[in-house]
Amino acid sequence: MSISYDQDNIFAKILRGELPCDKVLETDHSLAFRDIAPLAPDHVLVIPKGAYICFEHFSKEASVEEMADFVHSVGEVVRLMGIDPGSGGGGYRLISNAGMDGGQEVPHFHVHVVGGRRLGPILAATNA
Amino acid sequence: MSISYDQDNIFAKILRGELPCDKVLETDHSLAFRDIAPLAPDHVLVIPKGAYICFEHFSKEASVEEMADFVHSVGEVVRLMGIDPGSGGGGYRLISNAGMDGGQEVPHFHVHVVGGRRLGPILAATNA
Repeated sequence: MSISYDQDNIFAKILRGELPCDKVLETDHSLAFRDIAPLAPDHVLVIPKGAYICFEHFSKEASVEEMADFVHSVGEVVRLMGIDPGSGGGGYRLISNAGMDGGQEVPHFHVHVVGGRRLGPILAATNA
Repeated sequence: MSISYDQDNIFAKILRGELPCDKVLETDHSLAFRDIAPLAPDHVLVIPKGAYICFEHFSKEASVEEMADFVHSVGEVVRLMGIDPGSGGGGYRLISNAGMDGGQEVPHFHVHVVGGRRLGPILAATNA
């Protein structure tokens, strides 16, 4: 399996401005935008601007500054969506997939922030 | 809804050594251990040692050092489990729940690292 980053993935194109997105937040190192096929009333994707394929790749190669910016950005998205339980929101789920078993669709590390409804079991009980 | 941390949650008890765990990794600021009710062949929980209720809380109050340690720890767990696609592993999913809609069961921020089988759809399509 190749571990090289695909410069033509759709999130790379969004980051280069070649594709539009419904932007929620942008920082020095991160970008958040609404998922085009939402699975819940609130469904935002948060991505680092750096060329990282999955979380493990990000964890190994990103700078501490990029990591902190990413953590802050995901937290800020939760607050912007009004789903933080600590502020009276209903709650949320963060999901990040990697590789075939994870069902990763775009090979640029991204975190799904979902909320706005009861989200159900955290995993399907059997293979799918 | 209270936003105060419950010192009696089971992860707080694990961190204080009052309950055992099947430890996978421990760092200055993070602890990883196997889930006692695994939903996949590989199912490890990663938690910060600090008293954070959910990701948003962690993102707002943890130090940059704690954030970087946590990101590094989750990445290291993926590598230890042999599920990193960049190294020939099958892939994985990271999940973190918060509040009622997320279905959070223990009020101490934790990330589920799951792998070892095809993990199926990222979310149930309807409320559950």
